Amino acid sequence: MRRIRYSLNLGIHPTTPDTAEVSYGDASAIGLAKVRLLPPCAPSKIVCVGRNYAEHAKELGNEVPAEPLIFLKPPSSLIASGDSIVYPSLSQRVDYEGELGVVIGRRARHVRADEAMDYVLGYTCVNDVTARDLQKKDGQWTRGKGFDTFCAVGPCLVTKDEICLEDLRVRTTLDGEVRQDGLVRDLIFPVNAIISYVSAFMTLEAGDLIATGTPPGVGPMRLGSTVRIEIEGIGVLENSVVANPQ
Amino acid sequence: MRRIRYSLNLGIHPTTPDTAEVSYGDASAIGLAKVRLLPPCAPSKIVCVGRNYAEHAKELGNEVPAEPLIFLKPPSSLIASGDSIVYPSLSQRVDYEGELGVVIGRRARHVRADEAMDYVLGYTCVNDVTARDLQKKDGQWTRGKGFDTFCAVGPCLVTKDEICLEDLRVRTTLDGEVRQDGLVRDLIFPVNAIISYVSAFMTLEAGDLIATGTPPGVGPMRLGSTVRIEIEGIGVLENSVVANPQ
Repeated sequence: MRRIRYSLNLGIHPTTPDTAEVSYGDASAIGLAKVRLLPPCAPSKIVCVGRNYAEHAKELGNEVPAEPLIFLKPPSSLIASGDSIVYPSLSQRVDYEGELGVVIGRRARHVRADEAMDYVLGYTCVNDVTARDLQKKDGQWTRGKGFDTFCAVGPCLVTKDEICLEDLRVRTTLDGEVRQDGLVRDLIFPVNAIISYVSAFMTLEAGDLIATGTPPGVGPMRLGSTVRIEIEGIGVLENSVVANPQ
Repeated sequence: MRRIRYSLNLGIHPTTPDTAEVSYGDASAIGLAKVRLLPPCAPSKIVCVGRNYAEHAKELGNEVPAEPLIFLKPPSSLIASGDSIVYPSLSQRVDYEGELGVVIGRRARHVRADEAMDYVLGYTCVNDVTARDLQKKDGQWTRGKGFDTFCAVGPCLVTKDEICLEDLRVRTTLDGEVRQDGLVRDLIFPVNAIISYVSAFMTLEAGDLIATGTPPGVGPMRLGSTVRIEIEGIGVLENSVVANPQ
């Protein structure tokens, strides 16, 4: 099943959206033109994996990690497909990072790798937007990765029964040019290993989002850029970059 | 006003607690013995400041930072006063870090320092429990700071009208011995500066928690240890250290 979350956006009560979770089919019946997409999950936390493709670790001059490198993005950074990424005046280098997102289906705690997939609800596309200069300057990645609008997610969630992870390809295009084209099967730590590793220290709740890491090809966005993260079988997450919040 | 959150814990439905927010007076009327304290806030994110006392930065061999050093703890790490801190088998060195906690009262975004205190609801005590070995090993602090039970908060929230920040003292005792005794006025970045700094990149929501940093005197806890973080005018946050979740 393909699921979205949306708010009715009829221009009447934009600050008190009517939120619901529906199948794509239902959304079409309502008329997608009338709704505004929301991120397809409402995570209590967003757990990210750094340097999880060998070629990406190398392109930034980093070692390939021996264990998953985990960091958090705040829920306040979430936006949906169609929303704008705000380029912060504090940064001179803001990068896209296209990734496969995993949405947790039920509470996971000390889960073994061989049972980890039982805890997955489904998959989505993630843009782990990063102020590269601040990431390097601060040491801790919280600010460089944590700005409002720096976690784009969507357009929908596809339940795991419809997805074969081995076949997935994450493609990022910037203003129409392909910049990233990575295979999920090349993840150093695959989805089940990540869930097992994280759940050994941090209880994962239903709805929590894991961004599994970005393939090689990261690079800067500019004001006015449009970035698309596409995963065949899931859909296209599309966002534009603006100077000021709308 | 002093506020707590609690669950009724009559042994009937321990997994589906009846949660409410009441003044201390009301809680006494119910009979505190019958309730189990919860953390006094339910934050969408827990924002922490590292190395915010010069003497603490030095004791761990670090520079005094030029800007606030920000990191996140996950909501899954929250426990209340009276709950147990679980010593993870993955770590050989788990430290207490007593801190002043600030609870946000309303959404804060791009807030100036001179107006930041308008966004504060009140204060509480925090133990920013840290697996020191994993913090150093990982580089990113997410795992070392993010284990379940590693963010003890309480016992109550005291609204800002009852608190004079300049007078506050954070005292940590480990098994009855005083280990930390710091003055909030010695914070390198005071509360209003932290809120201004963080809200420039990350929208703070009502209920969000800021752990303002720990004074000198951090050190390891052992299995069976009892650690108390006391801030006069707020109360005592007390937790014991156990090997396995209860």
